[in-house]
Amino acid sequence: MSSFPHKHLLGLEDYSADDILKILDTAESMKEILARPIRKVPTLRGVTVVNLFFESSTRTRISFELAEKRLSADTVNFSSSGSSLSKGETLLDTARNIEAMKIDIVVIRHRAAGAPHFLAHHLEAVIVNAGDGCHEHPTQALLDVLTLRQKFGSVKGLRVTVVGDIAHSRVALSNIHALKKLGATVAICGPATLIPRDVAGLGVGVVYSIDDAIAQSDVLNVLRIQLERQEAGLFPTLREYQKYFGVTRTRLEKAQRPLTILHPGPINRGIEITSDVADSEHSLILDQVTNGVAVRMAVLYLLSGAKQ
Amino acid sequence: MSSFPHKHLLGLEDYSADDILKILDTAESMKEILARPIRKVPTLRGVTVVNLFFESSTRTRISFELAEKRLSADTVNFSSSGSSLSKGETLLDTARNIEAMKIDIVVIRHRAAGAPHFLAHHLEAVIVNAGDGCHEHPTQALLDVLTLRQKFGSVKGLRVTVVGDIAHSRVALSNIHALKKLGATVAICGPATLIPRDVAGLGVGVVYSIDDAIAQSDVLNVLRIQLERQEAGLFPTLREYQKYFGVTRTRLEKAQRPLTILHPGPINRGIEITSDVADSEHSLILDQVTNGVAVRMAVLYLLSGAKQ
Amino acid sequence: MSSFPHKHLLGLEDYSADDILKILDTAESMKEILARPIRKVPTLRGVTVVNLFFESSTRTRISFELAEKRLSADTVNFSSSGSSLSKGETLLDTARNIEAMKIDIVVIRHRAAGAPHFLAHHLEAVIVNAGDGCHEHPTQALLDVLTLRQKFGSVKGLRVTVVGDIAHSRVALSNIHALKKLGATVAICGPATLIPRDVAGLGVGVVYSIDDAIAQSDVLNVLRIQLERQEAGLFPTLREYQKYFGVTRTRLEKAQRPLTILHPGPINRGIEITSDVADSEHSLILDQVTNGVAVRMAVLYLLSGAKQ
Repeated sequence: MSSFPHKHLLGLEDYSADDILKILDTAESMKEILARPIRKVPTLRGVTVVNLFFESSTRTRISFELAEKRLSADTVNFSSSGSSLSKGETLLDTARNIEAMKIDIVVIRHRAAGAPHFLAHHLEAVIVNAGDGCHEHPTQALLDVLTLRQKFGSVKGLRVTVVGDIAHSRVALSNIHALKKLGATVAICGPATLIPRDVAGLGVGVVYSIDDAIAQSDVLNVLRIQLERQEAGLFPTLREYQKYFGVTRTRLEKAQRPLTILHPGPINRGIEITSDVADSEHSLILDQVTNGVAVRMAVLYLLSGAKQ
Repeated sequence: MSSFPHKHLLGLEDYSADDILKILDTAESMKEILARPIRKVPTLRGVTVVNLFFESSTRTRISFELAEKRLSADTVNFSSSGSSLSKGETLLDTARNIEAMKIDIVVIRHRAAGAPHFLAHHLEAVIVNAGDGCHEHPTQALLDVLTLRQKFGSVKGLRVTVVGDIAHSRVALSNIHALKKLGATVAICGPATLIPRDVAGLGVGVVYSIDDAIAQSDVLNVLRIQLERQEAGLFPTLREYQKYFGVTRTRLEKAQRPLTILHPGPINRGIEITSDVADSEHSLILDQVTNGVAVRMAVLYLLSGAKQ
Repeated sequence: MSSFPHKHLLGLEDYSADDILKILDTAESMKEILARPIRKVPTLRGVTVVNLFFESSTRTRISFELAEKRLSADTVNFSSSGSSLSKGETLLDTARNIEAMKIDIVVIRHRAAGAPHFLAHHLEAVIVNAGDGCHEHPTQALLDVLTLRQKFGSVKGLRVTVVGDIAHSRVALSNIHALKKLGATVAICGPATLIPRDVAGLGVGVVYSIDDAIAQSDVLNVLRIQLERQEAGLFPTLREYQKYFGVTRTRLEKAQRPLTILHPGPINRGIEITSDVADSEHSLILDQVTNGVAVRMAVLYLLSGAKQ
């Protein structure tokens, strides 16, 4: 079996470039399986995975569930509504109980940053972070870099700007780790209220104008605007956000060369991105989704191998 | 593999009598599988089906899910509560994203008439309509005609009256298509407010009295009264509906020959149908449910064959 | 196949000591399967199980679902929210419909005592009670006695006190049946308002002081306090309950010998039990959870055998 050097995937901060490349290479093999008439291999037969989603996320949950089923794992879904949590049980008790049922792998989505690390500290099971608060969303970043590598051959030297609400985004943070480790030049762009205060430590450029971002980038990774941030007073109106930071065809055309567009979805059409951009030939948004299943298969495969 | 001439099942309006008969014949083979000790065949191994239910329907969803699992497909359930839809994503974006995860077949239930056609136009996947607004519910009609064929040997020449809220019923419309194509004489019966205005184009008789309907029919297909229609003022009270259109033993006995009773469920006992009728030897309601799984297996089998 | 003398598991009142021991012995074989690298056997291939949960219970539902999947059964989950029930269908119609889809085994959790018996009377399927009102929760009691047998070699002669809200507890009643049949000496302990009035018929001792219970027991099975009981005025405050009946290390240490602690979960830490007790070496709470899957596998195996 594999000699992958990690037991868990809690975030990309602790993964090396080699670790990330091994996942990407494995994901390419998984994509070949997904292209077959019978998209299923017996690799994880008899292995049990629980999808422990304390925040709802149809997209990520289905992507993981498909990855698990195509590897022939047994999967059980847990969502927080209607669960023991509403009976006041702690996260640790819930997780210990689930582990006591002989679960091998826990895929966790939780609103609290650090929840996956907490479980990794207390459980024997393999933990995969499917998004924790404003911290990391590592499989999203892995599918982003896989998508870029497929398009450009390599991520090295690419100039990538992540646009939007950087301060509250686990996607942004995981992207910064993955892109920098693979040799990209990374910048962030958004309203000053949505740029993290400790930006200096991230080792990325900061651009406060979307036009400047377009002028100096090969790729824009456009984040979803969480509409609830507006209510918190972090930007004035959606209309104003769209006016100053919306990625539109008009703005992109000023660059005089095509920029590649990523977006983690779901898209707010006409807010952070216009439909003509989201649906253009330079948008890789649906490739990201396809790669998401392959990346998650690769992660589950490598981590379950590491366990044995 | 099969040479079934359709890629999708969007409705029965576009299906020929031969197409319908082929599904019924295939469903009979599937019923044989369901009678075995091990009710499972590897036919759809490695094929992925998503059950995309934007309206809740335990019965139809479980019936499809069982059909899929007994053909060894991998299934993923999606229901609109707690989904990206609540994050404002469009139907098309949701569907495109799911397809990008390499889904083969989408089973869709949606409150908007035409939603399945919309997906068929934009996606590569096979689309099966599990009920769209007031338009069609083709697998329900297929299981209805299968049930009648099993009882009478043939649907041809049968006099069938569909009773209830015809104007808002996808079951009624799909039944009319299926029954007429197979040579039945079809009538509809209900309060004038629940008969569609463009009834002339349907090619069916209209009866405004349940006693007249009973007098001239071999089969009553009794629709469920949607209680929310009453609030919309389309009929005065449930008591009055029951009085004038409820199917009771007393009324049926006037016919001096047994009428066969169908009902798509769930039953409002004592409203559109009394318990003694629903549970009588002439009621085929539970046969319909059993046939539902077989018909859905047949549809999935034939459409997945058509794709290859 | 097995010659297990029951078709259903509705409760333990009607099971003999031999029946219970056969389940425990079978569960031990199932635990061996759960200890293998590939925790899956084809025993129930092609058998369909529906988990019909009219009350939410993540823990019990996941435990049953894992048991089913590890025996290779096909499983379908039904929960009451968003179901036909909200459309006013009766329990019997729901169950008959599900059975008509060729379900072999129905696992039912329902708030009404007797719901599983009602289904067993009307359906052909095998019925497994996963908790009915204040009546029985037989698989919980089976996993409790399995856990005690593993620790002590035999349940016979053990002095077990069930502590808490006995009057409203299906866990207590099933425990009393199982423990007494296997030869344990059983007592109950709790506030007078939470002791059932007809306690004489149960054949158990009653202790109104937790200190007395500790002094005379080898094992405490500490029940979860349902917080809604307080609102019903059955005990004054959680603080007072904790003061008089909470199981704490200080109280246990007075016994001068270790008591074994069981709890069906989910735990209210600091209310009916303190964390140091719940997490101590004498607590078997997580063993109970592991045994739960094995016991449920054993029950499904034996009952499906009895059917053939």
